Amino acid sequence: MSADSQFSFDIQQSDAQTAARTGLLRTPHGTIETPNFIFCATKAAIKGVTTDQLREAGADIILSNTYHLLLQPGPDIVAAHGGLHKMMDWDGPMLTDSGGFQIFSIGHGWIADEIKGRRRIGAQGPGVKLSEEGARFHSYVNGEKILLTPESSIQTQRKLGADLIVVLDECTPFHVEREYTARSMQMSHRWAVRSREEFERGDDGTQALYGIVQGGVYEDLRRESAQFVAEQPFFGQAIGGSLGSDKAQMREVTGWARRHLRDDRPTHLLGIGGLRDLWEGAAMGIDTFDCVHPTRLARHGGALCRPWENDGKEHINIKNSRFREDLSPLDDRLIAPASRNYSRAYLHHLFKAGELLGGQLLAIHNIAFMTWMASEIRRSIREGTFAEEYRRWTGKS
Amino acid sequence: MSADSQFSFDIQQSDAQTAARTGLLRTPHGTIETPNFIFCATKAAIKGVTTDQLREAGADIILSNTYHLLLQPGPDIVAAHGGLHKMMDWDGPMLTDSGGFQIFSIGHGWIADEIKGRRRIGAQGPGVKLSEEGARFHSYVNGEKILLTPESSIQTQRKLGADLIVVLDECTPFHVEREYTARSMQMSHRWAVRSREEFERGDDGTQALYGIVQGGVYEDLRRESAQFVAEQPFFGQAIGGSLGSDKAQMREVTGWARRHLRDDRPTHLLGIGGLRDLWEGAAMGIDTFDCVHPTRLARHGGALCRPWENDGKEHINIKNSRFREDLSPLDDRLIAPASRNYSRAYLHHLFKAGELLGGQLLAIHNIAFMTWMASEIRRSIREGTFAEEYRRWTGKS
Repeated sequence: MSADSQFSFDIQQSDAQTAARTGLLRTPHGTIETPNFIFCATKAAIKGVTTDQLREAGADIILSNTYHLLLQPGPDIVAAHGGLHKMMDWDGPMLTDSGGFQIFSIGHGWIADEIKGRRRIGAQGPGVKLSEEGARFHSYVNGEKILLTPESSIQTQRKLGADLIVVLDECTPFHVEREYTARSMQMSHRWAVRSREEFERGDDGTQALYGIVQGGVYEDLRRESAQFVAEQPFFGQAIGGSLGSDKAQMREVTGWARRHLRDDRPTHLLGIGGLRDLWEGAAMGIDTFDCVHPTRLARHGGALCRPWENDGKEHINIKNSRFREDLSPLDDRLIAPASRNYSRAYLHHLFKAGELLGGQLLAIHNIAFMTWMASEIRRSIREGTFAEEYRRWTGKS
Repeated sequence: MSADSQFSFDIQQSDAQTAARTGLLRTPHGTIETPNFIFCATKAAIKGVTTDQLREAGADIILSNTYHLLLQPGPDIVAAHGGLHKMMDWDGPMLTDSGGFQIFSIGHGWIADEIKGRRRIGAQGPGVKLSEEGARFHSYVNGEKILLTPESSIQTQRKLGADLIVVLDECTPFHVEREYTARSMQMSHRWAVRSREEFERGDDGTQALYGIVQGGVYEDLRRESAQFVAEQPFFGQAIGGSLGSDKAQMREVTGWARRHLRDDRPTHLLGIGGLRDLWEGAAMGIDTFDCVHPTRLARHGGALCRPWENDGKEHINIKNSRFREDLSPLDDRLIAPASRNYSRAYLHHLFKAGELLGGQLLAIHNIAFMTWMASEIRRSIREGTFAEEYRRWTGKS
């Protein structure tokens, strides 16, 4: 980072009892307060939500997936627009991932959650060939052979033009043994250095780079990886890879990684988006989160709600027949019209009638809800009530 | 209509060469200028478009379909909200149809265009039994037996609470012979009287009733039906039923009906929504139009455009590969963000990527386009340039 960088991260308040802190993350497209949630515009679109609606719901920052955009429409077309911001009509901060997560989801036989568009990829999908150089795979759009390397991931992310970009890593799944995880982590570290060197070659001050901690579910590997990332001159740090098989393990693994990272860098937890998860992550000193959960849940009829008002549940299912005649809005204390101006009975009707508007309105509500909850996390840290709010939201002390 | 009615229709300017006129149609939910276009919120939702977006695109008036809402969610749930306006969060003028069109589309073996939701009805769909009393059919939602009569249609429309409501009629398709059409028309006239009497029994001044001209493609029947409607004390008059097999016959049949209707009443042409159709209808003295065309076209990638700028075509297909790298917006002279703020290349990408946002943005554009074109019709009548604009839009003199 040069002295006149357009990026900075400044911690504002720290919680007395936990590692939770509020911060200001400054980018060329504006400053966001942290902790905060990053909404997923996977293929350069939040599914069913316009950027105007996103702004109206209060969202501060979004991300897009390099893997999908590399294949369709291709980085050169995005660059011709002047980048993703201009193409999508989003003028706030933005992050892109490296493409690694989706590619290795396929390579390891997963079905990547994100690949839910018209073209589905199953276990029989195009294989991924991995080498020190990078990952070779076939485009699901036109079958073209593609080689993604640390260098080409950074070059692609430069064309996409997000504010925050990340190094290419191999993302190993849960079921992989320790030895493979250790070897993979070492290669990811070498890729991280190559990513950083490529980043520095073209750095014009408009983007900032995050390193990523790997190491799977092994404490010593997570420590080693976190120490590596902390020692490298990255602007930000992210925790990636498999966080385990359940919520308890996720907290444990995140904790192992977080404690060896640097406190003065913005810290992102990749792919996590439950309500309790955000409180627990914030308590460990995580600053940003992302997940498709809020918008995907909406498409299936799930509307986020305050757990203590709903038997401890984090969402209601609007398709449930108990909402057929419920004239109350989803939550009239939120700012989004979708949360305030429509009855649950109407939203129930839209789902019953197969009207996509139902999923759209729920998505806007869920965005407003997540944005509001993130502001509640910040407020409670600022006001010294974090422990109390944490108990209310998680049901735990 | 009582003297203190909340409804009125006042003609403002008349074109010197044609029957085109501008008017003000006043309802309890506001006054609209005519000629104007009514957008179809078939199942109490414009597909993929929120009412906020509808307002932003400039739409003045919408309609909903009694048939669909009778089955799901049911008129009592709508009434519990205080009517469709409150349920949908739409505070402008609104029209409901009688339910007849959809029912008889099924009864005559058509597949009603509107029935495109999750549950499809084919030719094997539930039959309709027709008698002097009304139409019996089965609900596509739960199989329930339903009897729709002129009285129950009006009662249902009262619960839905639209400003403008219509009489129940039998809607005969194109291929029906003259004798059936004549008998059907006579029954529709008796149903119109029953509808009006039911309307008058419950009239509290918040709704106004339209009669409908039937008579198929037969000039003498259209004249007889128009004279009948003109003699009945309806607030408004609509032209329904089959208008023929092609555009030329549509103009001819519409003309036969229109010339025997009253000039002092607001006149609606049911189910017509092509760009040229609106100019031709306006020239015959039609004041309002409705059609699913603009929003359905959008879901298939069609964006309305000015024909003289596009080889005479009324829309472009954004899925066409020629838009892959086209950085220009759909039409930056329109007010909607969807028309101005996104490139054709981005919209093309959204369709290629299977992102529903593409169809939503095109729907908003098409709504803005139709609304603007209706304002152009009015402006040209007002300014004495209707003939000139008519030639530009239709390519005919």
